[in-house]
Amino acid sequence: MSLQVLAFDVFGTVVDWHGSITEEVSQMNLNVDPLAFATAWRDGYKPAMARVRSGELPWTRIDDLHFMILEQVLLQFGITTLSETQKRDLNRVWHRLAAWPDAVLGLQQLKSKYTIVTLSNGNLGLLAEMAKNADLPWDLILSAEVFRHYKPDPETYLGVAATFDIAPEQVMLVATHKDDLLAAHKLGLKTAFVERPFEHGPNHLRQDMQVETWTDFHAKDFLDLARQLGAH
Amino acid sequence: MSLQVLAFDVFGTVVDWHGSITEEVSQMNLNVDPLAFATAWRDGYKPAMARVRSGELPWTRIDDLHFMILEQVLLQFGITTLSETQKRDLNRVWHRLAAWPDAVLGLQQLKSKYTIVTLSNGNLGLLAEMAKNADLPWDLILSAEVFRHYKPDPETYLGVAATFDIAPEQVMLVATHKDDLLAAHKLGLKTAFVERPFEHGPNHLRQDMQVETWTDFHAKDFLDLARQLGAH
Repeated sequence: MSLQVLAFDVFGTVVDWHGSITEEVSQMNLNVDPLAFATAWRDGYKPAMARVRSGELPWTRIDDLHFMILEQVLLQFGITTLSETQKRDLNRVWHRLAAWPDAVLGLQQLKSKYTIVTLSNGNLGLLAEMAKNADLPWDLILSAEVFRHYKPDPETYLGVAATFDIAPEQVMLVATHKDDLLAAHKLGLKTAFVERPFEHGPNHLRQDMQVETWTDFHAKDFLDLARQLGAH
Repeated sequence: MSLQVLAFDVFGTVVDWHGSITEEVSQMNLNVDPLAFATAWRDGYKPAMARVRSGELPWTRIDDLHFMILEQVLLQFGITTLSETQKRDLNRVWHRLAAWPDAVLGLQQLKSKYTIVTLSNGNLGLLAEMAKNADLPWDLILSAEVFRHYKPDPETYLGVAATFDIAPEQVMLVATHKDDLLAAHKLGLKTAFVERPFEHGPNHLRQDMQVETWTDFHAKDFLDLARQLGAH
């Protein structure tokens, strides 16, 4: 059973959420530490999804979760001057995240040999606008929104294989988060870890870059992954 | 409210299903009229969807409907020599349909000004493989599979607007089928009719090419539509 589909985690793996949010917040002159603001916004993400998973909230798109978290973070940072329109625009920064420098070329190389898709908790509209803005050449955008489950629920990983009518081991998850990869590995998918040591910004070097025995590939970046897969 | 998203019907509008199926069946030397075979296969499509809509069948992907219809058509044409593998491969001809000659360049032009998406009853895997094979540069592949409704159910047309968090009139359906366009028009979407007079093959020139008062655009092909929209 040959490998056919590479499914990519997006936030952190393909795009630099911390750097992009820091950059936009810096330009808004909000009198806050933009690095801390970016971190706080992202920190609200897993707790917000947990509220959906527990049934406290109905099914909610990430755009709407991001907005709920943003309102809390603005309060936390004492920012009360933004209009509703300004808040809506700031929330769409997630649609404008910049790709890591190796990402577009690496994806193009990988696309020449495999079908490349997203597997992200981001909603479809967000991922489509991000791809258009950052020139990400996806063959297909798959999202929690399609499966009505967030990662790491099994429906998402197995849903990629079902979408293409192939076996789980013909799909490889490419991600920089080991919890995401481990969930995919346990369901029979192949896994590739990609190092993104500065995902959390220049002052918080990630400490979890060590090679794991259970991953199939460990790559510095997408160009390195393409080389290892013979797709460059 | 400006136009933002062009949603394309696919079978017949973007790709030449009749020509592609005729070509593949011709090469199989099945001792049938390939033109009639292509027509018969497609003729089974709306009745098969009606069986799902009525509840007689559960939710079913078009790949599986196509296979059910194929088995009937093979019987009808007296073909009993194909193996299961050969039938499965023939069924995937729908993943390999060729684009109309103007389609790729027209889509590239339209993509420079609008977000271009599919809105097809084809399933996601089918549409993704078709796009990869025929170089269709979609910003997003949307399908009946995402909305769990086939066109012309309202959930599909309104689902495009909801995906991008915009109003229905900011979406335009581009299609060669007037029933599809009329359903979208009634829900407030803009509509563009595209002439595909040979959709049903060289011997069945379509007779419904006249301009309708209720469509917003009427185009010879995608290049003509791009000119009319100032996107060339």
